[in-house]
Amino acid sequence: MIEIIKNPAESEWKALCQRANVDDEVIDARVRNILTRVKEGGDNALKTLTQEIDGSCPANFLVSEEEFEKAAAEVPQTLKDAILTAKTNIETFHRNEIAAPFEVQTMPGVICKRRMVPVRRVGLYIPGGSAPLFSTILMLATPAKLAGCPEIILCTPCDKQGNVSPVVLWTARLCGVNTIYKLGGAQAIAAMAYGTETIRPVHKIFGPGNRYVTKAKQYVSTQGVAIDMPAGPSEIMVLADETANPAFIAADMLSQAEHGPDSQAIVVCANDRFAESINKELDRQLKQLPRASIATKALQNSRIIVFETSDREKQKELYIRFANTYASEHLIIETKEPWEIASQITAAGSVFIGHYSPESAGDYASGTNHTLPTMGLATSFGGIGVDSFMHAISYQELSPEGLNGLSKTIIEMAEAEGLQAHAHAVKIRVGKSN
Amino acid sequence: MIEIIKNPAESEWKALCQRANVDDEVIDARVRNILTRVKEGGDNALKTLTQEIDGSCPANFLVSEEEFEKAAAEVPQTLKDAILTAKTNIETFHRNEIAAPFEVQTMPGVICKRRMVPVRRVGLYIPGGSAPLFSTILMLATPAKLAGCPEIILCTPCDKQGNVSPVVLWTARLCGVNTIYKLGGAQAIAAMAYGTETIRPVHKIFGPGNRYVTKAKQYVSTQGVAIDMPAGPSEIMVLADETANPAFIAADMLSQAEHGPDSQAIVVCANDRFAESINKELDRQLKQLPRASIATKALQNSRIIVFETSDREKQKELYIRFANTYASEHLIIETKEPWEIASQITAAGSVFIGHYSPESAGDYASGTNHTLPTMGLATSFGGIGVDSFMHAISYQELSPEGLNGLSKTIIEMAEAEGLQAHAHAVKIRVGKSN
Repeated sequence: MIEIIKNPAESEWKALCQRANVDDEVIDARVRNILTRVKEGGDNALKTLTQEIDGSCPANFLVSEEEFEKAAAEVPQTLKDAILTAKTNIETFHRNEIAAPFEVQTMPGVICKRRMVPVRRVGLYIPGGSAPLFSTILMLATPAKLAGCPEIILCTPCDKQGNVSPVVLWTARLCGVNTIYKLGGAQAIAAMAYGTETIRPVHKIFGPGNRYVTKAKQYVSTQGVAIDMPAGPSEIMVLADETANPAFIAADMLSQAEHGPDSQAIVVCANDRFAESINKELDRQLKQLPRASIATKALQNSRIIVFETSDREKQKELYIRFANTYASEHLIIETKEPWEIASQITAAGSVFIGHYSPESAGDYASGTNHTLPTMGLATSFGGIGVDSFMHAISYQELSPEGLNGLSKTIIEMAEAEGLQAHAHAVKIRVGKSN
Repeated sequence: MIEIIKNPAESEWKALCQRANVDDEVIDARVRNILTRVKEGGDNALKTLTQEIDGSCPANFLVSEEEFEKAAAEVPQTLKDAILTAKTNIETFHRNEIAAPFEVQTMPGVICKRRMVPVRRVGLYIPGGSAPLFSTILMLATPAKLAGCPEIILCTPCDKQGNVSPVVLWTARLCGVNTIYKLGGAQAIAAMAYGTETIRPVHKIFGPGNRYVTKAKQYVSTQGVAIDMPAGPSEIMVLADETANPAFIAADMLSQAEHGPDSQAIVVCANDRFAESINKELDRQLKQLPRASIATKALQNSRIIVFETSDREKQKELYIRFANTYASEHLIIETKEPWEIASQITAAGSVFIGHYSPESAGDYASGTNHTLPTMGLATSFGGIGVDSFMHAISYQELSPEGLNGLSKTIIEMAEAEGLQAHAHAVKIRVGKSN
C-alpha cells in the first residue's frame, strides 16, 4: 500500500516532487581514487582495479572475433527478430532528428552557415549486473551511427569467467560497434576519458550505470570530456482520470519500480476510490513479480496524489502544473483526452499517450529513445538523440564589401566594450588603420 | 616575439595543443563556501557576501524602472544603431536554428513525435569589471527569446555607487530582459541556482565569467541545474598560407590576446619567413594597444607552428589534422581556397573564412554566436544557439492494434533483460495476462 495524498496545497508540491535522496560522500572518495589510478597507471591500473573490485580480471579486455561469432550462434532467433524490429523503429524515428545545415546572408557580403558534425570518438557504457541491458545499446549506437560518428567504442563488465552476455555482443555488432572492452565501473569511465596504452580516449561518454559510474562521469565531465547527461534513478509519473484502468496503472508503476530500490512512481488521479483501487492492484500484481523485493522498496519512495474537484478545467490545470513541477523522465497520460494535457506539458523526457502506450513500449521498441533526463532535469534536458552525437560548427565568410558594410557596427561596439584590438582587426582590413 | 615551432613531430602535437593551465584549488574551497552560504542564508547571505567581496552592496539588487529609463537616455545613438544592426543579424542567423517538430508512424498504430520546448526559466550572467560586455547579452538573450523562454533573468555586478553600465541595461531591455539583479560572482550563480526569498531559481544558467563564476556553474551543474557549457579562457587558431597578410593575422591574434592573460593564439603557417613577419607585426601593433600588458601575457601562451613541405596536399592535410586536434574556439582560415580546409574541419566553435572575416566580426555582428566551446571541447560541444534554450520532449501514442503488433517484440526483449514487470505492462493490456 503506497501513500495517498489528497489535494496537497501548492506549498507542499516541492516536497512531493522530491526524489529519493542519494548520499554519496563515500562513493565520491572512492571514485576519485579510481580515476587517479587509471589516469596514472593506464592498463596496469585497469587490471589491478578490476581484480580488486570484481574479484577477477579477464585475460584480454578487448572482445575477440571468436567471441562475437560464438555470441551470434547463441542468441535465439526470436530474440534477434525482436531486436531487429526495435532497431528499425528506433532508426525510423531518430532519422528525423538530423538537423540540416543552413546558410544565410545576414547582410550584403556577409554569409553565415551552420552545420552539425559528428563527435569523432564516442564511448558507450553498458552496465552488466543482474540483467544484460542490450536495449540500451540500440538506444545509444543507433543515433551514434545515424550521426556518423566514425569511432564508437563500448565498455561493459564481464562475468567471473570473462564472458559478456551474448545478446550484448550480438546487438553491438548489429549496430556496427565492433570495439568492445570487458571493463566496468568507474575504471571503465576513466579509461574512456583519459585513455590508456590500449584504449584511445573518447570525446564524449554515454550510458547509464550505478552510482560509481555516474559519479565518475560527473568528474570527468569537469576535465574536458563531455557526457550525455547527469543521470539519476529512473522515475515515472502517471496522470489518470476515470477512464483509466487501475490494473494498467499498477503495471506501469511496477515496471518502473522493478528497475531499482531508488526508482520512483508517482500517480495523479481524481478521487480516493480510484487511488485505492490502484493500491489493490499493486498488491495483487506485486505477488507475481520475480523482482518483488526491489519493487517493494521503490514503492516506498512512491505516492498517489489525488486532486479532487468538481471543476474539470481546474483539475486539468492542476494535473498539468503538477506534472510540469515534477518534470518526470517518463510521463504516461491515461485520460480521455490525453493531448489536451500533453500539449501543455513543458517538462518531461518521454510522454506516453493514452491507455495503450505503456512505458515499456518506449523502453524497447516504439522508436523513441529510452535514455532520458531524471531528477527533475527534464526541465532543461531532452533525451538522447542524434544531436547528442553531433555538435554545431558555425561559419562566416565576409567579402571585402561585406566587412566594409559591417565595419562601423563592429568598431562602435568593440570600442564601447573597451576592446581596441577587436576594432583594430577590422580597421586594418578596411583601410582605416595600419 | 612569440615562439616559432617548425615541423613538429606528431608526438609533440598534444603538448602544442595544451591550453594555459588553470589551477584552482583555492578557488574551489571559496566557491563551495559561497554556494553553501547563499543556499542557507538566501538574500541576507547575498548582501553580506556582496559587501565582503565587492566592498559595497547596492540598496536593492533589482534594477528599477527609473534606472532603465536613465540608461536609455545615456547610451549614444551611434552605439544604439550598432547594437540594433548586430541584433538584427543575430536574429536572422539564429532563426534558422529552430528545430521543427516531427511525427512519424514507426509501425501501424505506433505514432512517435518529437517537439522542442523552451526552458521555462533561464538565468543569464554578464560579467562586470573593466568592460561592459553588452554584446554577450545579445548573444544570449536573442536565442532565448527566439526559443520562447517565458522567464529570463539576468545577473550582473554593479559598481561601488550601485550603477550598472547604461549600455548593459539598454541592451537587456532591447532584448526583452526586464528582470536584472545587480549581483556578481559565485553568489549570483548560487542565487540563480538555489533561489532566495526574492530571486526565483532558474532551470539553466548561461554566460561567461571569471574563475569563481565558472567554478560555481560547474558545481551547481551537479546539483540539478543545467549550465550552457564548461567555460575556459578564450582562444583562436589561424591557418595561413602565402596569400595571407601577416598584419591581419597579427591583428587577429591581438584581438584574442587582449581578452585576458590566459587567452591563447595559435598560428599555423607554411614557412619561417612568414612566421617572422607575423612576429614583426605583433611587435609593431602591440605598441598601439591600450591593453598591451594583458595581451603580452597572453602571447606567452601563444605560438606559431610552421608546417613546411613542398607537397601541397600533404601540407593541407597537416593543417586540417592539426586544427582538428587543437579544436579551437575560433578558427580563422586565411588561405587561397579556405573552403578546401573548412569543409574538413570537424572540431571548432566558429570558423572565419578568408582574409576579410576577422574574429571580431563574429564576436559582435556577423550573426553567429560568440559563446563558444573552449579548452578543446569543440570536439563535442557547439556554440550557444536557440537549441541551448530548448529541450526535446518525445511522445508515443499506440492504438490497441499498435500495441498488439509490437507486443511480441517488447515482451521478448523485456524478458531477455529479466524485467518481467515491463513485459507484464504489455501483457495486461493485450489480454495475455491479468
